[in-house]
Amino acid sequence: MNQILPGTLHDATADQLKKVAYKRIATEEAFCPPEMMDIYRGLLDDNSFTDPGFNTMFGFYLNSPSLRSQQIRDYLTDLGDLRLSHMDARGIDMQVIALTSPGVQVMPKEQATSFAAYANDMLSDACKKHPTRFAGLAAVAPHDANNAAKELDRGINKLGLKGAIIHSHTFGEYLDDPKFWPLLEAAEALDTPIYLHPQVPSAKMIEPFLDAGLDGAIYGFGVETGLHLLRLITTGMFDRFPKLQVVVGHLGEALPFWMYRLDYMHRAGVVAKRYERMKPLKGKVSDYLRNNVYVTTSGFAWEPAIKLCQDVLGVERVLYAMDYPYQHDVAEVIATDDLDLSDDVKKMLFQTNAEKVFKL
Amino acid sequence: MNQILPGTLHDATADQLKKVAYKRIATEEAFCPPEMMDIYRGLLDDNSFTDPGFNTMFGFYLNSPSLRSQQIRDYLTDLGDLRLSHMDARGIDMQVIALTSPGVQVMPKEQATSFAAYANDMLSDACKKHPTRFAGLAAVAPHDANNAAKELDRGINKLGLKGAIIHSHTFGEYLDDPKFWPLLEAAEALDTPIYLHPQVPSAKMIEPFLDAGLDGAIYGFGVETGLHLLRLITTGMFDRFPKLQVVVGHLGEALPFWMYRLDYMHRAGVVAKRYERMKPLKGKVSDYLRNNVYVTTSGFAWEPAIKLCQDVLGVERVLYAMDYPYQHDVAEVIATDDLDLSDDVKKMLFQTNAEKVFKL
Repeated sequence: MNQILPGTLHDATADQLKKVAYKRIATEEAFCPPEMMDIYRGLLDDNSFTDPGFNTMFGFYLNSPSLRSQQIRDYLTDLGDLRLSHMDARGIDMQVIALTSPGVQVMPKEQATSFAAYANDMLSDACKKHPTRFAGLAAVAPHDANNAAKELDRGINKLGLKGAIIHSHTFGEYLDDPKFWPLLEAAEALDTPIYLHPQVPSAKMIEPFLDAGLDGAIYGFGVETGLHLLRLITTGMFDRFPKLQVVVGHLGEALPFWMYRLDYMHRAGVVAKRYERMKPLKGKVSDYLRNNVYVTTSGFAWEPAIKLCQDVLGVERVLYAMDYPYQHDVAEVIATDDLDLSDDVKKMLFQTNAEKVFKL
Repeated sequence: MNQILPGTLHDATADQLKKVAYKRIATEEAFCPPEMMDIYRGLLDDNSFTDPGFNTMFGFYLNSPSLRSQQIRDYLTDLGDLRLSHMDARGIDMQVIALTSPGVQVMPKEQATSFAAYANDMLSDACKKHPTRFAGLAAVAPHDANNAAKELDRGINKLGLKGAIIHSHTFGEYLDDPKFWPLLEAAEALDTPIYLHPQVPSAKMIEPFLDAGLDGAIYGFGVETGLHLLRLITTGMFDRFPKLQVVVGHLGEALPFWMYRLDYMHRAGVVAKRYERMKPLKGKVSDYLRNNVYVTTSGFAWEPAIKLCQDVLGVERVLYAMDYPYQHDVAEVIATDDLDLSDDVKKMLFQTNAEKVFKL
């Protein structure tokens, strides 16, 4: 059992990285055009924009003098030498890069649509400049779903991007709402995955998290995104769009751990006919987790949770991720290299699963 | 890997139970005095009581004609032959019984305090009548914390009860609020555990769960209770009350799975000084999970999640529970008997850990 303790992580250095027989492809890596930081500053200053989660998160990242937020600002905006040097120092061969959370999903519809296209052009250019190091996901504006579908098509077919990034809720609404279905339909038709990435819980649920400082990556992100994924399953989105594939970070936001209970209580709920929106599905909740969901290891350089996911979802469903620039310790790369897995499975984890899912 | 599929559970029968070399002690079992059902009916009819979670849950359990809710009403109110016959048929030697969720925590303060005493007398009588089959936890009214401390003392020292049951939030408030500290202090001083049991999320966070039917045992319960436990840790309750022991069902509401990320992001949060309420602690989040928390297997007759908890918390921290009458399949007992564990560890899981924690 490889019990890495986070308190010791920063002690490792790049020269401790081993030569390995696989490419390390990190699949949940973030960037932010400088112009998006300006838009976010505008939202912070706009008294009519009152999302408490956004305000606390970007109040911190944009304004805090802490080393962590300074570095995140600098690293997020780079798509060139700085990022490449960090990848080299941490042994990362390739990043799959996406617009950072919450992306365009806090912008008004028209601005969101146009900014998504701008960010996609920028990301695509960087990927074309460094085709062996960078791949990218397309930003889209879910709240303008028909245009999101078109932008996803452009991103995949014109710009060479490899999937869509969605940062959980959009103004408190979830992708199971029929207004968003054109986007799900497009992803299925294009045979390209949607990366369902965390964002801060909406005003509808944040208060008990926020008042203890637990709304972010420590817990609120995971709950919000796990809820979103579970909603997609239980409202029948994967019966409606059976080929749709969703990638979820942080080892599936703990839904693989909950899998047995999800199956049991979903069955009980369906039989009891308690909820209008909990209807019979073609499969069990766990069937959709195994057939329509990939999970990445972002935030988890930790054998117990990684192995549970591999055991219950299948080794072909678990992909490596780093979560740059929010978490990028070389010690975590070393810990993941050192997992007690066969050579074949380790290559799937770091390389070949990502190549298949994102068609790299 | 013992991948029990819930869809097949009901096929097992009692004659398939093996003779085992341990007592099966089930530690998260519920009862409800008939008078509490009357009080809950009154709340449902009271237009000034507007807790959406309570209304949906008890609108269902008290009024639904479904077989599930009928049985739950009948089984909850029995503390005699019916319960004993079900225990016999499922191989349960002993139940640790507590007032069902949300207990007195939806009642006005005075009523809550007096009803807790009433329920404790009733439960204590049943335990005295069947001392080898029943043990009980004391109900208390957290919102009347000084009286709750007194009632817990009476429950332990006069009535022979074995701990306290708390059903997560009380009118949307959590035990880290100083108003509740007299109760935590009493539990520590009495050297008796608090069982932190789920209840439906409060109005402050329920909406995105409720509108998809995910507020209950399938997901909302776990998130609400996991949040509560995490709040107790990160707000420093176990630094203030270092001997306090909390028992949490449903395998720790997934916090053991999150453990690595909790440590990492807690450290990052403390260093960044982002939140007033996230101060340095004496230990890591995982230290408190390992030293102040016991988890039970309620809802999880499932090897992958049970083994993860045993691996990361220690085998002495994981206790068997059934969750009667909400979940009581003999097939789940058989699956738990059949876990790939040493005889010693299995006896700890089913018997001796519970004997130690609850001083049975």
